[in-house]
Amino acid sequence: KVIWTVLVTILGYASSLPVGDDSLCSAEELAKYRIIFIGKWSQTAFPKQYPLYRPPAQWSSLLGVTHSSDYSMWKKNEYASNGVRDFAEKGEAWALMKEIEEAGEKIQSIHGIFSAPAISSGTGQTSTELEVHPRHPLVSFVVRIVPSPDWFVGIDSLNLCDGDHWMDEVSVDLFPYDAGTDSGFTFSSPNFATIPQDTVTEITCSSPSHPANSFYYPKLKILPPIAQVTMVKIKKSQLGLSAPFINLPARSNEIIDSVS
Amino acid sequence: KVIWTVLVTILGYASSLPVGDDSLCSAEELAKYRIIFIGKWSQTAFPKQYPLYRPPAQWSSLLGVTHSSDYSMWKKNEYASNGVRDFAEKGEAWALMKEIEEAGEKIQSIHGIFSAPAISSGTGQTSTELEVHPRHPLVSFVVRIVPSPDWFVGIDSLNLCDGDHWMDEVSVDLFPYDAGTDSGFTFSSPNFATIPQDTVTEITCSSPSHPANSFYYPKLKILPPIAQVTMVKIKKSQLGLSAPFINLPARSNEIIDSVS
Repeated sequence: KVIWTVLVTILGYASSLPVGDDSLCSAEELAKYRIIFIGKWSQTAFPKQYPLYRPPAQWSSLLGVTHSSDYSMWKKNEYASNGVRDFAEKGEAWALMKEIEEAGEKIQSIHGIFSAPAISSGTGQTSTELEVHPRHPLVSFVVRIVPSPDWFVGIDSLNLCDGDHWMDEVSVDLFPYDAGTDSGFTFSSPNFATIPQDTVTEITCSSPSHPANSFYYPKLKILPPIAQVTMVKIKKSQLGLSAPFINLPARSNEIIDSVS
Repeated sequence: KVIWTVLVTILGYASSLPVGDDSLCSAEELAKYRIIFIGKWSQTAFPKQYPLYRPPAQWSSLLGVTHSSDYSMWKKNEYASNGVRDFAEKGEAWALMKEIEEAGEKIQSIHGIFSAPAISSGTGQTSTELEVHPRHPLVSFVVRIVPSPDWFVGIDSLNLCDGDHWMDEVSVDLFPYDAGTDSGFTFSSPNFATIPQDTVTEITCSSPSHPANSFYYPKLKILPPIAQVTMVKIKKSQLGLSAPFINLPARSNEIIDSVS
């Protein structure tokens, strides 16, 4: 018996992942994944203006959706929806949940929604389960960077299906994005709406190119990943009563140590 | 065809609900519910020391579990677990998720875990789905009050099964609890560990009996509910692809208006 395993680690743009190729999925009916989000926003890796109090560096709830290519939660270089704006600016999930619900009703593009609890520090992790379907094999999610004007990390339309099977494990490094709705320059900038709204842009060590920006590190070529997400397919034998979330690592530090 | 509907509104102690009677459940195999949590923590209802900034009044992620009577997430007048302490004090969910996982592995007492996104203001709502099983018909959850020393609202072992059927709708008013792990007296008190740890106690308008306490309203007989939770059974016809979360109200205010 051959066990097919792939570990895709994309060191770069989540949005450079293959998108919209969900018409070719002929994998079995449903697949469940455990999704583990790991914050790597430490003061060591990101010393500049690192938020220490009121509030200290932390992550919002994770809000995600499994869907077809007819739906897009957010996309680089496009305008954020009102729901993504509310979530990126305030961590308020309701409007975004409503948008997803409406997309599901109107164009049958949604399989399910999922969320994972917030993380109360910059490093730490959270986890939940998600389910994909051959007609809805794409995963998108957002997590707000707290505090920040409208900055977030996330995945846009990652396809978990590869032809006739589901990927066993996918791991992606995450980098900060600006939702384009608030012109604040630093983690703790006061609210300052961007009018007209700008598109979603990636924040890099050199862009926005201004020394005041919290992620401006002119000596770096590339920012270290500020977070990482791993999706692991749950084996059939692990499904069923009383074992819906096995395989959580024992302590937050273990998985952080093992991947760094 | 008779549609059996019950709306249980308990104006008082969540812990006074029937507990542990899950051995008698002969309802159909599985039932899914939409759970809607509504924050009612307004400055009008709770004017004393209402937190307006850094951070303003808000609610953490909701973390819940469906289980048998062999498991207890938290209980009034008993000591909080380390996981509940971390969650009540900091909104950190990982240790509590691990505790639930271990209870599931050791004593098969867990059916599933669920979470809903945080709410960025004192009034507002969040929602997710949960699944119960005749051997695991009880629902428990916690939501941290932010900011606060170690205060939370929640449900302890609410039984969704009534003999041979699942309840159609259950609505419960929620009141604040003190996890007994931090001796802070007001929403924004600095950290001050309670040693030795105290048990979980309900906070009322007269207890703790001290004028400095944020919920001390000597002229009231009973606090207004600070939150409300509603669980609505999802009909079979509503299950299936592309309709996993129908029936969300259009705006936060609608449901708040309709229940107040």
